[in-house]
Amino acid sequence: MQTISENRCYGGIQGVYAHPSKACACDMTFAVYLPPAAEIAPVPVLWYLSGLTCTHENAMVKANAQQYAARHGLAICFPDTSPRGDGVADDDAFDLGQGAGFYVDATEDPWAPHFRMWSYITDELPRILDANFAIDPDRQAITGHSMGGHGALTVALRHPGRFASVSAFAPIANPSQSDWGRKQLTAYLGPDKTRWADHDATMLMGETGFDGPVLIDQGTKDPFVDLLRPEDLAHAMAARRQPGAFRFQKGYDHSYFFMESFMADHVAFHAAALGL
Amino acid sequence: MQTISENRCYGGIQGVYAHPSKACACDMTFAVYLPPAAEIAPVPVLWYLSGLTCTHENAMVKANAQQYAARHGLAICFPDTSPRGDGVADDDAFDLGQGAGFYVDATEDPWAPHFRMWSYITDELPRILDANFAIDPDRQAITGHSMGGHGALTVALRHPGRFASVSAFAPIANPSQSDWGRKQLTAYLGPDKTRWADHDATMLMGETGFDGPVLIDQGTKDPFVDLLRPEDLAHAMAARRQPGAFRFQKGYDHSYFFMESFMADHVAFHAAALGL
Repeated sequence: MQTISENRCYGGIQGVYAHPSKACACDMTFAVYLPPAAEIAPVPVLWYLSGLTCTHENAMVKANAQQYAARHGLAICFPDTSPRGDGVADDDAFDLGQGAGFYVDATEDPWAPHFRMWSYITDELPRILDANFAIDPDRQAITGHSMGGHGALTVALRHPGRFASVSAFAPIANPSQSDWGRKQLTAYLGPDKTRWADHDATMLMGETGFDGPVLIDQGTKDPFVDLLRPEDLAHAMAARRQPGAFRFQKGYDHSYFFMESFMADHVAFHAAALGL
Repeated sequence: MQTISENRCYGGIQGVYAHPSKACACDMTFAVYLPPAAEIAPVPVLWYLSGLTCTHENAMVKANAQQYAARHGLAICFPDTSPRGDGVADDDAFDLGQGAGFYVDATEDPWAPHFRMWSYITDELPRILDANFAIDPDRQAITGHSMGGHGALTVALRHPGRFASVSAFAPIANPSQSDWGRKQLTAYLGPDKTRWADHDATMLMGETGFDGPVLIDQGTKDPFVDLLRPEDLAHAMAARRQPGAFRFQKGYDHSYFFMESFMADHVAFHAAALGL
């Protein structure tokens, strides 16, 4: 693991690191914020999964989560959103290929050799964090934005017991029923829709629910709202009386300005679930 | 004035606007954050002047000031750092020309026709704000980072009575004595150093002081500290017993991670001076 940069931030350290990834068969970059409390003992970690076109950097500099992480005493990990590099398949569209991994393990060509973000996020990167940072692997929570909200929800719902809580900002909530989903799941997993079910938060919520609290924020002026299909996830949560809250926030769009406006709530929500 | 974008943010509006500038003889872009309180009555405004290479956008997305502006009920204006465009003079160096206006009115070729950031910041843009936003022109404060800290201090020191308070993050504190200053002041104002005195915060502080409180934060691990010369300004403040505080912050560098770590303090400082 190579240290790209470390900057003091709210009394802690905002670092950026690179490493050769076995899961993705390429070099990967991620960011970790360690709060001041991590100097004394291992701290819980909040995973933050980013959206289409983002790298590790966007949320690190724009989502304004570090101050709350410092206050509550939890670390944040900001992974990249896909494998990258000259030898990695890509597509001209912004919503397929590099920057658009959709948090799945691709089985189809040309994506299968590198696009294994599911394994990277759920297996390889957690072990790297555990080995290199003052993080307590028994206390984790997860959040994300847009495609990263989809990632956070599907990862949490399929790992009962691992995450104390899950939240999302404007998640791609029902990709099987959306043009933000069908295209990518077909490309990465093939046309057999039964293989998509494991990567659809609304379907997973309907089947199993989540064994902890859930918090979703969705702006009412989000220009992508018809692609995100928040109402499908809200219905699924209500149908099973899932503990948690689905909030429609009046006047907010899909930007980081929306997200940072509610970041205090989300970090406090996870901190409470983690017993901080 | 043209609206480029408006996003809801902490209950207020983060807007970006463009307009033809008479002072700079080119189109200029700036950002304004209006807090929720501006929906009811005009609010005080905090000017935020940015550093080398920045546009209006850097601080708008990275400095994390809006949440405190929303809480205290003040607007923030983020101007650009120089004139820009194909017809505007430039230099290959990052610290001269476009993105490096140094908040002066240039008198020397090739800069004189457009590089009039002093007039733009102190005269033209305030009138545009007054005409177009719910801002109270009788209640202003000013801050900035690096080159923008230099701008904030010199603008405040030379306009007694206009600003309730001034603060800066890692300002270029004594440009007459620094390679971040001599080169640019020579280029923009000519080699006669008597013309530089109006644009040197340490000299102005020594001559007149500031008629309100001053807050300066400087990181001890700032890689540019020898160019910034914080000790010169600290000495000048101490010599005249200037009300205010000069703080050296252990372990912090020159980045936005440094700045955002102390943004709550700075906005609260200005809010208190403005009677909020």
